[in-house]
Amino acid sequence: MTAEDRHLLREKHEQLARLLPELSADVWLLYLREGRDPASLLVAGYPMVGESVFLFTSDGRKQAIVAGYDAMAIEELGVFDEVAAYGLEGIAPKLTELLRTLAPQRIALNYSEEDFLADGLSYGMFLRLKRIVEEAGLDVSYVSSAPVLSRLRALKTEEEVRRIREAIGITARVFEDVRASARAGMTERALCDFIEERQRAYGVRSVGEHGAAVCTGRVGIGHRGPGEHPLVPGDVVSIDMGVYKDGYCSDFTRTLYVLRPGEQCPPKAFEERFSVARDAIEQAVARMAPGVQGHEVDAVARAHLERCGVEPYSHALGHQIGRHVHDGAGALAPLVPRYGNRGRIELEPGHVFTVEPFIYSRTEEDGLPPIGLEENVVVTEQGATYLTVPQEALWCV
Amino acid sequence: MTAEDRHLLREKHEQLARLLPELSADVWLLYLREGRDPASLLVAGYPMVGESVFLFTSDGRKQAIVAGYDAMAIEELGVFDEVAAYGLEGIAPKLTELLRTLAPQRIALNYSEEDFLADGLSYGMFLRLKRIVEEAGLDVSYVSSAPVLSRLRALKTEEEVRRIREAIGITARVFEDVRASARAGMTERALCDFIEERQRAYGVRSVGEHGAAVCTGRVGIGHRGPGEHPLVPGDVVSIDMGVYKDGYCSDFTRTLYVLRPGEQCPPKAFEERFSVARDAIEQAVARMAPGVQGHEVDAVARAHLERCGVEPYSHALGHQIGRHVHDGAGALAPLVPRYGNRGRIELEPGHVFTVEPFIYSRTEEDGLPPIGLEENVVVTEQGATYLTVPQEALWCV
Repeated sequence: MTAEDRHLLREKHEQLARLLPELSADVWLLYLREGRDPASLLVAGYPMVGESVFLFTSDGRKQAIVAGYDAMAIEELGVFDEVAAYGLEGIAPKLTELLRTLAPQRIALNYSEEDFLADGLSYGMFLRLKRIVEEAGLDVSYVSSAPVLSRLRALKTEEEVRRIREAIGITARVFEDVRASARAGMTERALCDFIEERQRAYGVRSVGEHGAAVCTGRVGIGHRGPGEHPLVPGDVVSIDMGVYKDGYCSDFTRTLYVLRPGEQCPPKAFEERFSVARDAIEQAVARMAPGVQGHEVDAVARAHLERCGVEPYSHALGHQIGRHVHDGAGALAPLVPRYGNRGRIELEPGHVFTVEPFIYSRTEEDGLPPIGLEENVVVTEQGATYLTVPQEALWCV
Repeated sequence: MTAEDRHLLREKHEQLARLLPELSADVWLLYLREGRDPASLLVAGYPMVGESVFLFTSDGRKQAIVAGYDAMAIEELGVFDEVAAYGLEGIAPKLTELLRTLAPQRIALNYSEEDFLADGLSYGMFLRLKRIVEEAGLDVSYVSSAPVLSRLRALKTEEEVRRIREAIGITARVFEDVRASARAGMTERALCDFIEERQRAYGVRSVGEHGAAVCTGRVGIGHRGPGEHPLVPGDVVSIDMGVYKDGYCSDFTRTLYVLRPGEQCPPKAFEERFSVARDAIEQAVARMAPGVQGHEVDAVARAHLERCGVEPYSHALGHQIGRHVHDGAGALAPLVPRYGNRGRIELEPGHVFTVEPFIYSRTEEDGLPPIGLEENVVVTEQGATYLTVPQEALWCV
């Protein structure tokens, strides 16, 4: 763990101390195993291997029960008041003892119906925990810890924003390399391989399992692996990409136009289509400010697309980024069943969002290409600031 | 998705067809979101982004309900009979319709108390699903899909074993580079950085968040980040490392000895201590064969250490490797509370395990160093075969 990592962990624990009183429970019990709960990195900076419990009491005490082989990693953090290690007897005896001492009536657990990153407790783990609690002779009710955990993740500290900026800076360099090297004849896959090679050269890894999403508009844009389709003159190609740098990520999209022989710039209608997406972003970002809800920002971009006669995207306008490319539940999402209450997030300084009003039109319908465009912004006291340098026009290659 | 990926997916679906009848349920419903369920890569080769359902009926029909932006990725796999895509209305309407058509009484779900890789259903997701099922007017009981899912993961196909071998081969090259470059004066962290640089050079990434576990015996071995302790003459250094290659991993440990000025080899007592771990592995591997249970293999190594007057490791002798470094529940584990029934796994041809009888003794107690040693093996019809080239003696640097 580097000095910067330690600093970051201290920043998050200062936030945690401020947020904990919002929990309507006697204790918050974070129960996890095998690095499966993303909250582990947030509160311990370490993906616990063995079955582990982090327990926070409302008066600010922090206790850990971990497997022997994980104990050193947690002790050296210095953020827990007590670290107990178990061996072959398993976690149950020490956890039972701790629960009997604290005798909580209401336990907040790391589950959430809406925020998958505050939902690290698996159903199997819940069944295990429930049995331990019952065998300890306690009669408790369970509530979700999302009110604290989701906010803890969403409120980026200075060091977190610095890391996201670094990831964005490296991504921008990869995009510049793409702009300099992409040409007609290359396949989606070749472009994708080139991007992976550049990411490796810069010492970072892609946020996606399959690297960047390189999509020629003719074939359709979306989350899909690259195909063997070569870029042909007249193609519009959207590249959705993000990288991890020091545990934090970027996620934005740039769109290229492959010039036809003799062309100096894209057809005017293509440029206008691009501007529809660009202006939607500009207007949405102008709407962002503390206290504004996510769905209100989505509505601005959606309305602009409709005014321009373009069918709006069938997803949310934007998601948070941070330790994960979809960093928590609150989103710039419409109030529709698919997104539940996610669009009700109230923007706060330190929130970092993507803004991505993709245009998915099919070329065969109106002769115009789909356009992928996505920027990253941070909410400030005054409004919102771009973390990316926004793309202002199609990049010709 | 490459041709090899497609081939691998077909191999897994052939296994799945053989295993499905073992499920004591009408349907198997795999409910997942945001790449959070490791079963997704196993059955779809793709980490689903949106909320998704994969439904398998006992007569072999396979249906998928996915978000619009994920649909192309699933359609192009060609392993699902039907792929339905939803938009802003969310997954509930299409799922409700499918459930009403099938009217199952018993649904197997992706949860498990013991196998964390068959436990991808979070508690929050379970609550969502339960509500959808109730609102569909169905009265069902739920069972765990682990009997099928755990076996599907554990039984490595030819292509899976080939990929693990490749990961092991690259890891061995990194270890050779370490052997050639490690020297007194380097810190644990410097060695760790060197390893990361070599992994990058070979185009692979480490299985751990923090890269290799580089532990000088003086400071203690276990899961911990590297420190600023320099290697000094007379040190024994254990390096636990694994890498991912094409989605599959290695995980083994090599131990170095830092020669003192004038020494040609380690002290005899150190060599003997190393042999205790080495012989424990040899005896355990000799015991491995189809039908033997995991705990029986653990017992062989544990007994050998005890006979040699060494305190046995407080964990299991070995875990499975594959798509994950801890690839499923079945382990070479003792029958103790910490491991529940994990040691009851019956070995089958195609199981791949680590074998790691670490000796954690503290130098200040008996003057002897702790020893980390770990090999990888595959179970065959006849017994078990090393996938690693076993370390036979301390490597002097």
